[in-house]
Amino acid sequence: MSLQPTAALAHFVETSQSGRMPPELVHEAKRAVLNWFGCAIGASRHDTVSRAIAALSPFFGRPQATVLGRAERPDMLHAALMNGISSHTFDFDDTHLKTVIHPAGPVASALLALAEHRSVSGLEFLHAFALGVEVECRIGNAVYPSHYDVGWHITGTAGVFGAAAAAGRLLGLSERQLVWALGIAATQACGLREMFGSMCKPLHPGLAAKNGLSAALLAAQDFTSSEQGIEGKRGFANVLAGARDYRRITEGLGDTWELLDNTYKPFACGIVIHPVIDGCIQLRAEQALLPAAIREIRLRVHPLVLELTGKTAPRVGLEGKFSVYHSAAVAIIDGAGGEEQYSDAKVADPAVIALRNKVSAVVDLSLKEDAAHIEIVCEDGRVFGKRVEHAIGSLARPMSDRDLEEKFSRLCAPHLSDSRIEALIAGVWSLDRRADAGELGALTVPG
Amino acid sequence: MSLQPTAALAHFVETSQSGRMPPELVHEAKRAVLNWFGCAIGASRHDTVSRAIAALSPFFGRPQATVLGRAERPDMLHAALMNGISSHTFDFDDTHLKTVIHPAGPVASALLALAEHRSVSGLEFLHAFALGVEVECRIGNAVYPSHYDVGWHITGTAGVFGAAAAAGRLLGLSERQLVWALGIAATQACGLREMFGSMCKPLHPGLAAKNGLSAALLAAQDFTSSEQGIEGKRGFANVLAGARDYRRITEGLGDTWELLDNTYKPFACGIVIHPVIDGCIQLRAEQALLPAAIREIRLRVHPLVLELTGKTAPRVGLEGKFSVYHSAAVAIIDGAGGEEQYSDAKVADPAVIALRNKVSAVVDLSLKEDAAHIEIVCEDGRVFGKRVEHAIGSLARPMSDRDLEEKFSRLCAPHLSDSRIEALIAGVWSLDRRADAGELGALTVPG
Repeated sequence: MSLQPTAALAHFVETSQSGRMPPELVHEAKRAVLNWFGCAIGASRHDTVSRAIAALSPFFGRPQATVLGRAERPDMLHAALMNGISSHTFDFDDTHLKTVIHPAGPVASALLALAEHRSVSGLEFLHAFALGVEVECRIGNAVYPSHYDVGWHITGTAGVFGAAAAAGRLLGLSERQLVWALGIAATQACGLREMFGSMCKPLHPGLAAKNGLSAALLAAQDFTSSEQGIEGKRGFANVLAGARDYRRITEGLGDTWELLDNTYKPFACGIVIHPVIDGCIQLRAEQALLPAAIREIRLRVHPLVLELTGKTAPRVGLEGKFSVYHSAAVAIIDGAGGEEQYSDAKVADPAVIALRNKVSAVVDLSLKEDAAHIEIVCEDGRVFGKRVEHAIGSLARPMSDRDLEEKFSRLCAPHLSDSRIEALIAGVWSLDRRADAGELGALTVPG
Repeated sequence: MSLQPTAALAHFVETSQSGRMPPELVHEAKRAVLNWFGCAIGASRHDTVSRAIAALSPFFGRPQATVLGRAERPDMLHAALMNGISSHTFDFDDTHLKTVIHPAGPVASALLALAEHRSVSGLEFLHAFALGVEVECRIGNAVYPSHYDVGWHITGTAGVFGAAAAAGRLLGLSERQLVWALGIAATQACGLREMFGSMCKPLHPGLAAKNGLSAALLAAQDFTSSEQGIEGKRGFANVLAGARDYRRITEGLGDTWELLDNTYKPFACGIVIHPVIDGCIQLRAEQALLPAAIREIRLRVHPLVLELTGKTAPRVGLEGKFSVYHSAAVAIIDGAGGEEQYSDAKVADPAVIALRNKVSAVVDLSLKEDAAHIEIVCEDGRVFGKRVEHAIGSLARPMSDRDLEEKFSRLCAPHLSDSRIEALIAGVWSLDRRADAGELGALTVPG
């Protein structure tokens, strides 16, 4: 295909056929959507979401779409914003490892709001989702790493294209209108890494969802943009990145799918600790370990682990996420590494502190980033070892569907009844056979 | 002051006192606001505005604020967006020549919408406006020209800070909240020069107004951001500009006012043709020239004039803006250079074409950019010359208040009755004595 990147993506989005999606792509789209639902519902009561709603609810339009997990029902643009925010608040969402984009937040947040406002079949929803992820990740591939290195939060800047493309597809835009939608998205691309550690980090996928959706709506009314929003001399790639490779956008377009390279975090903390947590949970299950019976936990880890997460005495939940010691202890005690394992209360729990103080860690240069070695010495002298070569959640050892269901259930448990949780899980797995994708939104509202 | 730029601007915005504004600053704020009203009302029926409304009106919230010149009454965020768009659609708005920022659009569009939603005195409105312009132009000064050269439309990217600061002041934000408002603005800074020539160009000040206003609203609810949104390692200035000088933000803050360097376009075309139009209008008035009596119009111009506006036979209105020949002819015939002098009909008018064909132009390297020489040879042999040293609208020869009133009246005449136009002019000149600035919005709605 000899089209320029913007035109090539528009052509692809307009001509792709939902009926020709490979079955594994349909299934991966469901996995990503389930994970997105869980992250957004789990964080739905967080201050970040509540403050955004307090600030903007006086300007909500007619009730059109759901804020996942909450009773508010704003216009679809504000719903897209709020769900994009909540999906990234726990930093527990999916990751396209090649670009560190969190793909689902911008795309699914725009799509579900649109699907609630206009009826859309489940298959069309999953297809538009796969297209949106393809567009954002290919644009990300073309500008990564220079774009990220200079300071752009790529989930926001690439995400707006994904949301525009996906929404544009569902709105039935022509190829020319899709070019404009991508252009209107390009000129709204934003989100600075300077904001990491503040509420603006999860704001970025929210903005990407809302702005991408409005870009598609504007293009549907023939609101014009440059026709080279991505590759133009003063377009996105030249202005926001030090280097770029447009072949990463056009080559194999329609034949390969970036969504198949998506990964899901099993644990609600930085990915470098995941092998340790994974190994501790495995040992706990295999040996029926009781914390009181443990004399010592010895870890051998990749150098990055102590560099990034070497905090020995965390005081609050957020600091716990930067402590491999806390993470190992709580994994043994709870058999989990979810958001509740990083609460302020958990970090201050005397039983957790007691076990944490028995954890030691040394660097082992032979270990890859997704590997770790754990040795547990019991009071009775028995010793158990576990070497993790590829942590659960890595591309080499992806979370199973069942793992994703359990993660989803744990995230939703504080907010939804068991029957609702089961209905949502079943609803996502059967999405390609549902007549109306938007119906899932209402199932997330408590009560 | 030793504060960092973001903190310094927040401190300035929080502590500045409206009662201490120099009288000339109050007056310049009124001039800028009058010019903004006129540009926005004038373009209020343009396709750019109508398409944006068609796309987004299904998502409008409760009626809170005016779309200038129109009957629609959306929530204040959408009103800010639409008025920011219309204010720049004719490219006839104000210019801060040091940075090529069009300062009023982002700031006034946010402020009027806010003032219509919550009662604000005219003096507080003008003060907040001056603060917003100060913030956006100082940030612009700090990153210009590298920021503009790389491809950013500085009216959008700097404008969002101005809107956030101005709205934050009216919302009574604390210094810390103003820091967050500037941070939330920084992470939404957007607008690519690639979009010039499309509807996205005027979209940029609209987005700046809306996003800046929502940044202030979010900060008012303690939605947090980095506290170094401007100067942080991965903040606005480092990520979006190749070079930066923070002294341009902090030095003299509160003592000097960028608004006093604002200029207003007398003519609805590129600024390089302004000296020629100015001279032609002067000659027409002084000599009571009739087109039929003219044999020849000889121009001597700065080289940029023929480079940028050398189109000898424009076919449509937009091409007329790039023709010094059309501009001179229509200035002689109509005594004006407003939007209606660049309509498709005017460019195709046989009388205009006949006079246009009598215009010749040569480059004169002795002329400055805001200078021109015009010589008119009449059929009866008389010759009139006019040398313009500084075109009307330049800093050296600003438009008078009366000029601004006439420009305003011409822009509004297609949409508003004479009595409404007079009421608006009087309303702006008396703004510092009005109890409620927002009342002016409703006066712009026809009927």
